[in-house]
Amino acid sequence: MLDFNFCVPTNFIFGRDTHKKVGETIKGLGYKKVLVNYGGTFLQETGLLDVVLNSLKNSGLEVVELDGVLPNPRLGLVYRGIELCRAEKVDIVLAIGGGSTIDTCKAIAAGVPYKGDVWDYYMTGEPVLEALPIGVILTIPASGSESGCGSMITNEENGLKRGAGGPGLYPKFAICNPELTYSLPTVQTACGMADMFTHVCERYFSNTQDTYIIDAMDEGFFRSLIEIAPKLLKDPNNYNLRSEIMWMGTIAHNDTLGIGRVQDWGTHDMGHEISGMYDTTHAFSMSIMLIAWMKYVYTHDIERFVRYAKYAFSIKTEGKTREEIALEGIQSTEMFMKDIGMPVRLSEIGISDTNFEEMADKALIGKEHIGNFVELKKDDIIKIYQLAK
Amino acid sequence: MLDFNFCVPTNFIFGRDTHKKVGETIKGLGYKKVLVNYGGTFLQETGLLDVVLNSLKNSGLEVVELDGVLPNPRLGLVYRGIELCRAEKVDIVLAIGGGSTIDTCKAIAAGVPYKGDVWDYYMTGEPVLEALPIGVILTIPASGSESGCGSMITNEENGLKRGAGGPGLYPKFAICNPELTYSLPTVQTACGMADMFTHVCERYFSNTQDTYIIDAMDEGFFRSLIEIAPKLLKDPNNYNLRSEIMWMGTIAHNDTLGIGRVQDWGTHDMGHEISGMYDTTHAFSMSIMLIAWMKYVYTHDIERFVRYAKYAFSIKTEGKTREEIALEGIQSTEMFMKDIGMPVRLSEIGISDTNFEEMADKALIGKEHIGNFVELKKDDIIKIYQLAK
Repeated sequence: MLDFNFCVPTNFIFGRDTHKKVGETIKGLGYKKVLVNYGGTFLQETGLLDVVLNSLKNSGLEVVELDGVLPNPRLGLVYRGIELCRAEKVDIVLAIGGGSTIDTCKAIAAGVPYKGDVWDYYMTGEPVLEALPIGVILTIPASGSESGCGSMITNEENGLKRGAGGPGLYPKFAICNPELTYSLPTVQTACGMADMFTHVCERYFSNTQDTYIIDAMDEGFFRSLIEIAPKLLKDPNNYNLRSEIMWMGTIAHNDTLGIGRVQDWGTHDMGHEISGMYDTTHAFSMSIMLIAWMKYVYTHDIERFVRYAKYAFSIKTEGKTREEIALEGIQSTEMFMKDIGMPVRLSEIGISDTNFEEMADKALIGKEHIGNFVELKKDDIIKIYQLAK
Repeated sequence: MLDFNFCVPTNFIFGRDTHKKVGETIKGLGYKKVLVNYGGTFLQETGLLDVVLNSLKNSGLEVVELDGVLPNPRLGLVYRGIELCRAEKVDIVLAIGGGSTIDTCKAIAAGVPYKGDVWDYYMTGEPVLEALPIGVILTIPASGSESGCGSMITNEENGLKRGAGGPGLYPKFAICNPELTYSLPTVQTACGMADMFTHVCERYFSNTQDTYIIDAMDEGFFRSLIEIAPKLLKDPNNYNLRSEIMWMGTIAHNDTLGIGRVQDWGTHDMGHEISGMYDTTHAFSMSIMLIAWMKYVYTHDIERFVRYAKYAFSIKTEGKTREEIALEGIQSTEMFMKDIGMPVRLSEIGISDTNFEEMADKALIGKEHIGNFVELKKDDIIKIYQLAK
């Protein structure tokens, strides 16, 4: 096990009706003026926005609203949020939504006390130590951003999608009410599950040796998700299944399932270039690239892929070669993604090989390689994009 | 999944040489005067105490020492610590040790700002909201107390062993260096592993239904521990195995493996009465009572015991009845405990049935029943003690 620091100070407030107490929660922390950040039309249509705003106002809090978050959230809105917080002297930002909204809020929170351009954090990798406090009402379990200190933002001027992070960006609290996810469109529910699957894969496929407990918990995660996903898609108003998935999204990305090991993240780096260039849904890019990545790298450590096949998919091993078992695990991953409605090839979402070289170049900006399980250079990345065609 | 709050704000600083930076860590948090609490002779013999004291002094911190922690830690030392902290105006308490020392420090930390008798917290169950900050250098992975907000203390005047807890008692930081555990006696290493095994059992055996992810992670925990334990006892200076066990002890008891469900804790309640009356090593009491408890309750939900047998011990199920599989799981648990050197019967540690009734009465003070998987009343508790003879 490698040395690590682990600290997730976020207070998770999980269960029915928890969002109705957001005003009390924020007031109890001593804050006075809240930037409420969201996107889409879901919050207004369902009346959720009113419930939240009423809770805030009834607790005597002042409220400033910032609408307009889009998937693959944009730097432009971040700049607007920073200006708004400064002008209005906001002392906490509240994200209502999923990863895009939370990541936007984190970027705003980082930018308010920072003297330079907040995009610096995204290009330099400097850790964010100081930021406005952040609260979350989670409506889309997928990104795990409610439990992490990272933020992904797309700079719409140059199409670069980049991450920033640091201990200043952990949300103070995350209100998680599984009922708020009942009305998610099927595709978005599925995308969330695909997303969290890849989050654990990035941690599981590691060269760090003898990693018993995290491996076993990751395998338990895969096994659970594979069992729950089809059930939930058939029964979207099942509170229990929704709650399992909501918590799984959280732990998939706060390193509960990844401490003490070198993680990979090559799939994400390659996928981000697709989303950055074509504005593709994040989970679609991830699903496609995960399968292609697995096919490209499995021979590097076939025993790890055998273990994955055995414990994640309960694949029988008798009478099969190690390679057959490993490949069956990869095929099962592909089938799992297909079964929940994810694309598994770029052609399914209308992307050709036109820009593979440019995407590979962009993925490598400022880096010698991406990925760690296998270190991927330009040629490798292009070959993986080819496998994903 | 039941509603829950989950917040473990502790900063885990895990790895080699981390204890040498304890002075910097405390100074960085802004504190000035440290009560250093420990017990036994290990710290002096190994030179660890000097290393820690030097780190503190080199960072300009004032130090007050409180020696004398015993296993099943006593209220008397807690009172002395509270007086010392008040007289010396200490602003942080530092535990160097395992559960007994950490729990003593928590009791001291709770008592300093409290106007009444700190034992009130232990008898009333009132949550501890205010306490001195607590830091930990972990030398015995077992109790998980470095990551929890609970404290168990024995009142030597009446033999009662009771728990208190509350959000004020989470350690600010826990320094975990697996190397510090190399010199633990074999029996103590084994006790730690037995202890963490029971911590997860108390969470796993639940009537809460459809608990996918926590069940799967718990099963991964059992599987890992069963694999690691004999290896570590043969190879006690194996850094990697020591580090796995150190982190497993932490997550076994901070509800990473137990959120969203009714937990049991009957085994602990019965075991505490043995330790309280006979000063028996905590893990011995736990090992003995876990096996007896399993034998008494398994028919209540045989499918849960089947699942336990299958995923924890990889027991083959073909051609066996559900009951046979369940019983094989229990037998395997007994063998596991025996193999790592734990007693599995009270007679092995010289305890007869003389006080079963008194222990049952004590376990039920202030309670209708103990346990939740099966609610245990006086007759049940006595029968389980009988099974443990």
